[in-house]
Amino acid sequence: MKKLAVVLAGNGVFDGAEIHEATLTLYSIEKNGATYEIFAPNIDQHHVINHITGEEMPEKRNVMIEAARIARGKITDLAKFKASDFDALIFPGGFGVAKNLCSFAFDGVDCTVNLDVEKAIRSMIEQKKPVGALCIAPVLLAKILGNVELTIGQDKNTADAIKSMGAKHKDTTHGEVIIDENHKIVTTPCYMLDANISQIGDGANNIVKAILNLA
Amino acid sequence: MKKLAVVLAGNGVFDGAEIHEATLTLYSIEKNGATYEIFAPNIDQHHVINHITGEEMPEKRNVMIEAARIARGKITDLAKFKASDFDALIFPGGFGVAKNLCSFAFDGVDCTVNLDVEKAIRSMIEQKKPVGALCIAPVLLAKILGNVELTIGQDKNTADAIKSMGAKHKDTTHGEVIIDENHKIVTTPCYMLDANISQIGDGANNIVKAILNLA
Repeated sequence: MKKLAVVLAGNGVFDGAEIHEATLTLYSIEKNGATYEIFAPNIDQHHVINHITGEEMPEKRNVMIEAARIARGKITDLAKFKASDFDALIFPGGFGVAKNLCSFAFDGVDCTVNLDVEKAIRSMIEQKKPVGALCIAPVLLAKILGNVELTIGQDKNTADAIKSMGAKHKDTTHGEVIIDENHKIVTTPCYMLDANISQIGDGANNIVKAILNLA
Repeated sequence: MKKLAVVLAGNGVFDGAEIHEATLTLYSIEKNGATYEIFAPNIDQHHVINHITGEEMPEKRNVMIEAARIARGKITDLAKFKASDFDALIFPGGFGVAKNLCSFAFDGVDCTVNLDVEKAIRSMIEQKKPVGALCIAPVLLAKILGNVELTIGQDKNTADAIKSMGAKHKDTTHGEVIIDENHKIVTTPCYMLDANISQIGDGANNIVKAILNLA
């Protein structure tokens, strides 16, 4: 049975992992006959957003402790990730990817990437194992790897930033997956488009199938 | 198109709504051709649990603000719920149901139920519209309605408590749904059993189908 590592950026679309994308990725992994282990970096969130008002709350939360809510407590510090234990690595989206896993939300093209995230991605690529990314998470791959082909949907500003990082961007619509066979990189837009939850289910299922085909 | 009201008890299995049950309920509603609106009571959570250690954290969080993370910001105060606007009402599970929507986790048979929750359920029953409950959420229906037939899976202590409240309990396994045709009550065990996420998907899909058949 193939085993995927899933990296979560917290718990909630505006400051963490997008919950529908994260849950439907886990669901798709099991439905397609594979298994998973969940990881998150053990760091403070950039900030905490009230998801009703969109305003910042005067609180501190830890990415790994909050992501454990999606993982039902079964979560591992990303610093302990070993590429040799897994067949593939996958990143659901959410603003937390661009705020906690890297600084793209604030610094754009000049963003920095969390070192454990970079190490996890590079070690998979070195072992020629596939890496998948949903929604905004492909920016991590563009920043770290540069010359890859991927999608974040149709948002021109984000696509332009990705091109500035050296990557090739392909426009996509709901449920579509871009497969870079050379680098074993698969990406799908999910909530980077104006989507409903069944379209997210389609995207998650399609990217998991594609990643398992490459693994 | 049929419209369901979904009530969330927060965001996280140990102190709020179980995230997989909540997300897969929303997904099943759309996949079965219906639509939804999400509600939560505007109250403080009973407490905040660190989902890695299981320990209480020295924080206060609001049920509706946290549930908005699952709802991606689109959530309504349960006090504003009107039965006439919906074809059915459904409660995903999680300890938050037994800690925030009622006090069953602490008071068992003698628990009290949040007044907005009770009003929402009673108003649907008066209008002969179906009410569904996953996981531990059927305790709400047993406490409020008494003489109904339902399931929380196979946990003897919880089943005994439900019987003491005047309800009839039926043991069930993964994905099974108990339908009380007289009262239009449908229930399924989900994570009240030792389940994996694809079994939760089956349970959510089956209960949504059953509730739409009754609606």
